[in-house]
Amino acid sequence: MENFTAYNPTVLHFGRNILTALSSTLKEYGTRVLFIYGKGSIKTSGLYDQIRSYLSQAGLEVCEYEGIKSNPLIEDVDMAAATGRANKVDVILAVGGGSVIDSAKVIAATIPVQHTGWNFLDGNAKPKLAVPIVAVLTLAATGSEMNPFAVITNTATRQKWAFGSPLTFPKHSFLDPSLTLTVPADYTAYGIADLIAHCFEAWFGIGDTSLTDRFVVSIVKEAMANGPALLNDLQNYKLREKIMFSATMALNGMTMYGRAGGEWGVHSIGHCLSFLYRVPHGASLTIVYPAWLKYFKNQIPIRISQLGSALFDSQLSADESILKIEEFFRSIKCPIRLSEAGIKGDVRQSIYENMAVNKVNGGTMKLKETDFYPLIDLFL
Amino acid sequence: MENFTAYNPTVLHFGRNILTALSSTLKEYGTRVLFIYGKGSIKTSGLYDQIRSYLSQAGLEVCEYEGIKSNPLIEDVDMAAATGRANKVDVILAVGGGSVIDSAKVIAATIPVQHTGWNFLDGNAKPKLAVPIVAVLTLAATGSEMNPFAVITNTATRQKWAFGSPLTFPKHSFLDPSLTLTVPADYTAYGIADLIAHCFEAWFGIGDTSLTDRFVVSIVKEAMANGPALLNDLQNYKLREKIMFSATMALNGMTMYGRAGGEWGVHSIGHCLSFLYRVPHGASLTIVYPAWLKYFKNQIPIRISQLGSALFDSQLSADESILKIEEFFRSIKCPIRLSEAGIKGDVRQSIYENMAVNKVNGGTMKLKETDFYPLIDLFL
Repeated sequence: MENFTAYNPTVLHFGRNILTALSSTLKEYGTRVLFIYGKGSIKTSGLYDQIRSYLSQAGLEVCEYEGIKSNPLIEDVDMAAATGRANKVDVILAVGGGSVIDSAKVIAATIPVQHTGWNFLDGNAKPKLAVPIVAVLTLAATGSEMNPFAVITNTATRQKWAFGSPLTFPKHSFLDPSLTLTVPADYTAYGIADLIAHCFEAWFGIGDTSLTDRFVVSIVKEAMANGPALLNDLQNYKLREKIMFSATMALNGMTMYGRAGGEWGVHSIGHCLSFLYRVPHGASLTIVYPAWLKYFKNQIPIRISQLGSALFDSQLSADESILKIEEFFRSIKCPIRLSEAGIKGDVRQSIYENMAVNKVNGGTMKLKETDFYPLIDLFL
Repeated sequence: MENFTAYNPTVLHFGRNILTALSSTLKEYGTRVLFIYGKGSIKTSGLYDQIRSYLSQAGLEVCEYEGIKSNPLIEDVDMAAATGRANKVDVILAVGGGSVIDSAKVIAATIPVQHTGWNFLDGNAKPKLAVPIVAVLTLAATGSEMNPFAVITNTATRQKWAFGSPLTFPKHSFLDPSLTLTVPADYTAYGIADLIAHCFEAWFGIGDTSLTDRFVVSIVKEAMANGPALLNDLQNYKLREKIMFSATMALNGMTMYGRAGGEWGVHSIGHCLSFLYRVPHGASLTIVYPAWLKYFKNQIPIRISQLGSALFDSQLSADESILKIEEFFRSIKCPIRLSEAGIKGDVRQSIYENMAVNKVNGGTMKLKETDFYPLIDLFL
């Protein structure tokens, strides 16, 4: 094991009807709320009206920022922060999936300062203060509800980068699985893929830790055992519950205990595909992970074989493990090649260039620019 | 799954040489420290001198309370609280195993008030304030380092009761596995038994939650895989590390996600044996758990069989599972009958009476007084 620090102060409220405690929770932080959300699906589902009703019954003053994009943009972060700053908000209420909650984290750090939030992403500034965040999750996928991390896109610099600070954990997150019952099959599958990929990034991270490995395998097996059934029965509350809980556990810190860091090479390549071609995040990961495993299978054959053998309960070689993982992703109808996501033609150079701009690297297995083309060729 | 709230704000520092950050951590809370510890083993090991040196280098004002007992007593809690109150301490530094850290929690709540700490144990008072606690762990067993719970004995009332409040999580806990290298074989084994029993109390708790079950099985398998090896090689740092990490995970909340509560019937019977006969806590659990399983095997055969089958990787009946669990406890030289702990003769009535005084009950499987004698007869 590597030395590590475990710290996660988020209060997670999980289950049916938990939103009744939302406004009393917000009031712990003050009376002025910045309510942020995405494209408006919470309006069609009725969740928006329900929350506005809770807020007005509690006498909270609310300003709103609507329209956070999936693959969220720094422009929205800066505009939402300006709204929050102008209204002197006490707390941010983020309602949505990972994009909205990720945005909330950078907004929280940007409200108290005079510069763009991008300065936190590019490392030119560190937050000293952050407005408290309360989150309501509507999509099981990223784990943002119980970690301090955010991934934000800067169209101008063509970068999609990550950020995190101990100040940007949500104070409270509300997870009612019934809010995910309306998520369509494709995004349900991408969420399952995302949580599995988070576990893989931990598994291939830096440091050897047998109990944490067992936790990682537990989460992936739970997702593999219940994900396909959920895709055949999208209205099944009990299956939604299992996947929502698994997604939170996949990136709340417990898969990283005893490690000096995760791998994250696949995520950083995936971010390029999302930036360039708007490939949904989870789909970008099912495209890149098999290629990454193939590219490194001669360097880390035992680690890949251990993962496959644990997941599929039989002794598998690295090659067999990779095939089985591809098969699983295919079984939940996720693309395992970029062409299967509809992106064809001469894209090698664009991907290469964007990987260079984003300084794609990795944790355990460092990627150099000379690795980019042969790796890209494995997922086209 | 049952609705649940996950919350654990303790900062856990794990690994080699982490104590170098101890005094800067204490200084976050002030300059006046109440340093509490046990029977003096930290003096013979040199840890006491090391810590005093860190504290004096940092210019901290220190008062001490020495002599917390294993199966800690409310008298010590009240006396230590009086010392802390008189010295207007800002923070408690608890150095030791579960007894010292458990005591620190009740001391922390008792310093700000004018009554005995027992009022928190018997439910007549709830803490509104608590002095911050920083812990240094020297024994892998109870998990007290990352939870808010304390178990304290009241000799006058013949009760050994539990308490916990969101205010009594340690703020920081320092876990350096090398501090456990000197723990003798018997207490090392009792610690392994304790952590396994904590997992069992979660497994037999209230509510069905498949991913949490996987976590529970992960922790017990890790302890069963590494515990016997450690007992043959007590100086092995890597094995100490695995057991210390497992013990913390066994009672930090993650085994209870999705449950409405744990079982805890065995623990409350075990507390009676510790109270009456000074049976070490871990040993009391290996004595009572097989008996409890036998007593309830016709009511929850599937749940017992699922546990045994998962732990031992083969399809086992409830009876076979119980035998295998007994065999494991025996293999680490823990008693599985009270007589094996040297307690013989006519003890049935004393145990019965103490169970009644302590209102022994349980979570999923409620115990009535009519259950006491037949259950006792299974572990004599």
